[in-house]
Amino acid sequence: MGKNLTSRAEDYSKWYNELVIKADLAENSGVRGCMVIKPYGFSIWEMMQKELDRMFKETGHRNAYFPLFIPKSYFSKEASHVDGFAKECAVVTHYRLKTSEDGSIVVDDKAKLEEELIVRPTSETIIWDTYRKWIQSYRDLPILINQWANVVRWEMRTRLFLRTAEFLWQEGHTAHATKQEAIAEAEQMMHVYADFAENFMAVPVIKGTKSANERFAGALETYCIEAMMQDGKALQAGTSHFLGQNFAKAFDVKFSDKDGSLNHVWATSWGVSTRLMGALIMTHSDDNGLVLPPNLAPDQVVIVPIYRTEEQYEQTVAKGKELVEALRLKGIRVTLDSRDTHKPGWKFNEYELKGVPVRVALGPKDLENKTFEVARRDNLSKELVSEAEAVSYIEQLLIDIQDNLFQKALTMRHSLTHEAETYDEFKTLIEEKGGFVWAHWDGSSETEERIKNETKATIRCIPLEGPEQPGQCIFTGRESARKVLFAKAY
Amino acid sequence: MGKNLTSRAEDYSKWYNELVIKADLAENSGVRGCMVIKPYGFSIWEMMQKELDRMFKETGHRNAYFPLFIPKSYFSKEASHVDGFAKECAVVTHYRLKTSEDGSIVVDDKAKLEEELIVRPTSETIIWDTYRKWIQSYRDLPILINQWANVVRWEMRTRLFLRTAEFLWQEGHTAHATKQEAIAEAEQMMHVYADFAENFMAVPVIKGTKSANERFAGALETYCIEAMMQDGKALQAGTSHFLGQNFAKAFDVKFSDKDGSLNHVWATSWGVSTRLMGALIMTHSDDNGLVLPPNLAPDQVVIVPIYRTEEQYEQTVAKGKELVEALRLKGIRVTLDSRDTHKPGWKFNEYELKGVPVRVALGPKDLENKTFEVARRDNLSKELVSEAEAVSYIEQLLIDIQDNLFQKALTMRHSLTHEAETYDEFKTLIEEKGGFVWAHWDGSSETEERIKNETKATIRCIPLEGPEQPGQCIFTGRESARKVLFAKAY
Repeated sequence: MGKNLTSRAEDYSKWYNELVIKADLAENSGVRGCMVIKPYGFSIWEMMQKELDRMFKETGHRNAYFPLFIPKSYFSKEASHVDGFAKECAVVTHYRLKTSEDGSIVVDDKAKLEEELIVRPTSETIIWDTYRKWIQSYRDLPILINQWANVVRWEMRTRLFLRTAEFLWQEGHTAHATKQEAIAEAEQMMHVYADFAENFMAVPVIKGTKSANERFAGALETYCIEAMMQDGKALQAGTSHFLGQNFAKAFDVKFSDKDGSLNHVWATSWGVSTRLMGALIMTHSDDNGLVLPPNLAPDQVVIVPIYRTEEQYEQTVAKGKELVEALRLKGIRVTLDSRDTHKPGWKFNEYELKGVPVRVALGPKDLENKTFEVARRDNLSKELVSEAEAVSYIEQLLIDIQDNLFQKALTMRHSLTHEAETYDEFKTLIEEKGGFVWAHWDGSSETEERIKNETKATIRCIPLEGPEQPGQCIFTGRESARKVLFAKAY
Repeated sequence: MGKNLTSRAEDYSKWYNELVIKADLAENSGVRGCMVIKPYGFSIWEMMQKELDRMFKETGHRNAYFPLFIPKSYFSKEASHVDGFAKECAVVTHYRLKTSEDGSIVVDDKAKLEEELIVRPTSETIIWDTYRKWIQSYRDLPILINQWANVVRWEMRTRLFLRTAEFLWQEGHTAHATKQEAIAEAEQMMHVYADFAENFMAVPVIKGTKSANERFAGALETYCIEAMMQDGKALQAGTSHFLGQNFAKAFDVKFSDKDGSLNHVWATSWGVSTRLMGALIMTHSDDNGLVLPPNLAPDQVVIVPIYRTEEQYEQTVAKGKELVEALRLKGIRVTLDSRDTHKPGWKFNEYELKGVPVRVALGPKDLENKTFEVARRDNLSKELVSEAEAVSYIEQLLIDIQDNLFQKALTMRHSLTHEAETYDEFKTLIEEKGGFVWAHWDGSSETEERIKNETKATIRCIPLEGPEQPGQCIFTGRESARKVLFAKAY
């Protein structure tokens, strides 16, 4: 077994890389740090996009598209933003190549840009430069826009989906007349992300705000959802930023309010990326390969006919087609794999590796007994199900698998969550058990920084929910209003 | 009337630019040649994407994603490709900015790339570099992949949607075991594009192949669909290329065939872009603004209540909601504009400008008489329709409008299509009437080039359909197998 995958216990990181390649999700390209998202991986991303896009539209947002390039000077306009972003990025300096005397292709020195262009690492600056033209009055507000785009951050150490120089994401950028409205928007989008993570990805998340150190460059508050991976490392799965008036001031975006006063506009931005693919993989998958929650599986069910003779082939395929049609009527995504170029055993392995939630097999014995063999990917168990009950059984099974994956992930997270009352306890937990550690913190950036330097653990979030119990900071002994969530993170 | 739009008769080009801005479709950004696609414009593009994506998937294609950047050396590998493409493009030379001594942000000279990266103008090279790893045997073929992406071509003179430095498109890239299969694929996608243009955009197109001069850089054959705009200029609406084995040879992509022989793979690529937005606008729109075919209109119907008193407001809005629900049950995209911040007259103008196919108005008189006033955007006519018949009337009306727009466009094209028997006739037609001109051509690039230099008309296509009647080239008098299609073009 094991599809020649390294086991998680042996080397989690190697297991992850092998799984991404072998399940046909993505691979490295000839361009340093840039990945190719293969058709199967991309079809899962399309499922994610479809649900998120629906959620964004249901909360009043519309899609638009802004330029890939950002003039260098735009970055300088918001001081804290440039510190966080503009440094490691792809810079376009020329706009023409030419054939040199020796016949090779070289950059044409005469075609140098007057001002360099940055390939967007995020689009706040170009978007707020645009919003200035769109906003004059309170009647122009709110602006609720999202964009699906590629962005580039020049990362030195990259990993497929988790950290790549180019990645795909969505970035929402909204403009509001009041501070309260902008905060409500930023909080709403955090809740939308949490809803998506839990109900579609089956990934339980903790909602909270970031400490000042971990905040988005240019934000007054960063809301986030934090997930726990099987190896005890946390993964930030989505962020939503309350930007205050920082970008409106940097780009001079004012509106005349109902009372005639001229005020700067309030802003939010929020995003999730192809990094979610990494979170999905590392939450549910096992040593046999990918495990997909039914709500995001491109194929929820695959049907494999088993046969020896041509007659058996025709009969099992015909019966399989009946089941396909019946399941599609219920809105279930199902494929009949009737290829006779591959053996059933090969197919079983393939769909296990690719994480298809439900596999149905049917052979001559099943035709005789009017049954199907229904196997679930999440716990690898099998049942014989009568033809008459198959559709309703599978319909319910998909719900059960979705729920089971969430519960398993929740159990995994519980087993990887601890509390530390002292710094010694904290260090031992972080080092020996990993996972989330709840601990008191005095609220200072300096303390956070020192804990990070000594343990590599960062504050993942200051939780929005749960009881607030005051105590003493594990590091300085100073007062703390409540425990916060630490972990080593991806 | 006229929404302060310049009329088409007065200045077609100015009318186009004003319409794009005033109908909220797109605008220029702070980055030279790059546009911002505004939410309304983007929602039309999303409608296009949705239908095209469905058609691609129905013909067996899957989406994937390849890197934005292409190493410079990749372009040199296919000689004719680099001539056509790699020259006017955005070149990334550095990967870091830094703060200089005077506090400004500058490019970090130490962070110079060893090999420059080109922002993709098209992705054949990076994709065929990837396919080499995916293809060993005939069992790996065909590969049928599409990608939705942004691309950059450094254009000096840009126009919104029609010619921009960055634009959005889809690019299909397929790999096949045989030449016939690849040609069949290229032809199939031309037919898919024609189907989309005619049945969704309501834009009649002529299918054909390009002359050698107008062929895609690296293709053996370029199939295209050509449309005629209201001002007598042609617009290439989509192309599909048979690439032969050029890219397989350049990137060393071979497969072992059933008979054990090792052969180079056959290729196609095909694409349409946000340029289609320009074609849509310039085919149907009028001096009052945009005109959208129902099959691509984000809102097919808008309902505007008319009232004086609060009671009338409530009654008309309630009745409007009933109609919304009934239309939605039929799958019709409909919005009730119940905003009391804007007057009905303002709304009428707005929806006319934005090209919503059907506008329904209802006031107190309509409530009394159990009627709706139904106005169609294509011919600006109105009808009183009884409540009982409204849904079926509107359902049929949307079909009629779609059909009428296509027929009008066909009539327009007919009136702008002529035949020339002599070069003098040809020059007069091109100069005085514009439009398509059918004329005999000797098949040589030299003749085509000279005609282009003298008249600015190019061969739009060598048609695939219609009768073949031999004759003499209008320019050289040499033999010609059939007339080809000339026009000045966007």
